[in-house]
Amino acid sequence: MTSTTTAPAPRAAVLGTGSWGTTFAAVLADAGNEVTMWGRSPEACREITEEHRNERYLPGVTLPGGVAATTDLRAALAGAHVVAVAIPSQAVRAVLSGSADGLEPGAVVVSLMKGVELGTHERMSEVLREALGLEERRVAVVSGPNLAREIATHQPTATVVAASDEATAARVAHACATPYFRPYTNTDVVGVELGGAVKNVIALAVGMAQGAGFGDNTTATIITRGLAETTRLGLALGAQAETFAGLAGLGDLVATCASRLSRNNTLGRHVGEGMSLEEAVAATGGTAEGVKSCRAVLELAAAHDVDLPISQAVAAVLHEGLPVLAMTEALLSRPRKAEGV
Amino acid sequence: MTSTTTAPAPRAAVLGTGSWGTTFAAVLADAGNEVTMWGRSPEACREITEEHRNERYLPGVTLPGGVAATTDLRAALAGAHVVAVAIPSQAVRAVLSGSADGLEPGAVVVSLMKGVELGTHERMSEVLREALGLEERRVAVVSGPNLAREIATHQPTATVVAASDEATAARVAHACATPYFRPYTNTDVVGVELGGAVKNVIALAVGMAQGAGFGDNTTATIITRGLAETTRLGLALGAQAETFAGLAGLGDLVATCASRLSRNNTLGRHVGEGMSLEEAVAATGGTAEGVKSCRAVLELAAAHDVDLPISQAVAAVLHEGLPVLAMTEALLSRPRKAEGV
Repeated sequence: MTSTTTAPAPRAAVLGTGSWGTTFAAVLADAGNEVTMWGRSPEACREITEEHRNERYLPGVTLPGGVAATTDLRAALAGAHVVAVAIPSQAVRAVLSGSADGLEPGAVVVSLMKGVELGTHERMSEVLREALGLEERRVAVVSGPNLAREIATHQPTATVVAASDEATAARVAHACATPYFRPYTNTDVVGVELGGAVKNVIALAVGMAQGAGFGDNTTATIITRGLAETTRLGLALGAQAETFAGLAGLGDLVATCASRLSRNNTLGRHVGEGMSLEEAVAATGGTAEGVKSCRAVLELAAAHDVDLPISQAVAAVLHEGLPVLAMTEALLSRPRKAEGV
Repeated sequence: MTSTTTAPAPRAAVLGTGSWGTTFAAVLADAGNEVTMWGRSPEACREITEEHRNERYLPGVTLPGGVAATTDLRAALAGAHVVAVAIPSQAVRAVLSGSADGLEPGAVVVSLMKGVELGTHERMSEVLREALGLEERRVAVVSGPNLAREIATHQPTATVVAASDEATAARVAHACATPYFRPYTNTDVVGVELGGAVKNVIALAVGMAQGAGFGDNTTATIITRGLAETTRLGLALGAQAETFAGLAGLGDLVATCASRLSRNNTLGRHVGEGMSLEEAVAATGGTAEGVKSCRAVLELAAAHDVDLPISQAVAAVLHEGLPVLAMTEALLSRPRKAEGV
């Protein structure tokens, strides 16, 4: 006698209902997972679960049927073999503290976040490990040229899944691979996370120069020198130079700087046009990740004695009133006879 | 008894009256040189000399007083200590052959050209050396994120001056340094030239994807993988990886791909929208450097047993009718588990 049973779909959780969290939930569902999102807003959770939409962050996009959302963090974590986290970088430690015992014993936790924590100057995977008491091999990072809206509309996109343990990276890559979302694995977690954290600051610099009227030569120079300073910081922290030349370094930086929809680019352009930081935040409809992580990135660099001239100039424009023209001038006229990292 | 005499301005020549040659002539004049351009068109030469304009290539720009033009190649070369060459890459050997004895004995020849010669698959500095019988130390290359029109309107721009002999590079850098044009020296001539030659092919690929409706994630992925394949070719030819991460590699590639004015990007977009190569050339108002150098770049890569998947795909789309969607699909789905150059 034979019987046919269908194995239940593996369960995954996504914490955070912003545009990237919601998009990644849709990717996980399209890859065959039953996904439960967690968010603070009952109305957003209801809209996701009942209407398969998240109009605030992904207007016009219909989510796959395998995505639901709840305001109950423990309910979201229950049974999930992969837990992806997309919570604002400076809030994640507070939100997750005390939730460690809600995680399944074998679950892998995936950071979708880009930034460095103020004060501790820890990378997001380090914050996750501390907040949830995880061994290194249970944490992964997803990063790349991944503008959420393009992925949510199924434009083919490559990404990088990084974990110190190759098997963990492969497991997460398998869990999120779809015909339109193609993960490549990497074991350089430090490099992948730094590429993502510093790129938001460089995107602010590019936006500032564009807002002040500079053209594509200047944009390209800031991107090039910005990647060079990110690479310098990475090498000091033990990352590999090749990672910064790859999809999570150069790729993510170029996608962010090319996108007029990026909040960092938009806020930077407002500042370049002459607004104060407060006015630019209001005009952008909120702050941008680079504004928050700029100081944390500089703290990290100072702790390792690395000079980041573009990030320093961005901080000086945002917080000390340095004119954007003086910033651009300083970047182009640094005393340097021969090129190099 | 004292007398004051003013030393005569040093003389420089620019061969070619296109947009980049004309812009570089203006830079040399602003840096203190007396510049004589050479061109085939008597009318263009008269317009440059008498009206200080080159309306066909730099509409609306007024050239500095120190720029004149002639149709007499030997007259242009006479007395010039720096000779910059901006002639179409597949024509330069024929144009310059037989002119070696017109050069001043100590003159340095500077390539402003980007491409690889068909048949010989030589870089432009190699073609110049052969055509003019020059020792290696008398040739330099200028390349970087240098959209001509932005420089002609005095937007501050950085560039790379490369020569195997550091003193030659420094001499050319001195001859063209102005407050808006900032040269950095490099001795990796091979890397600087390859970055410039392959970027036109990558810009075609980016334009094709954009024309077919792909977004910024795809653009960023093609730029990243395109720079990786350029670096691979460079390493096989003895160049240094850092050069490709610098202004003449990444910087030039990003500026070209960002510019909607680039002919390579425009022609690529027309192909991506469904035009044949002939139709796209007509719609662009002429061919683009990447179309001409694509085959030569592939010849060079084949001679060194290097695989260039993006350049190969561009050639297949242009010359073998491969659909752009199949090209993009192939680029994103190459079998590759781990990232890397």
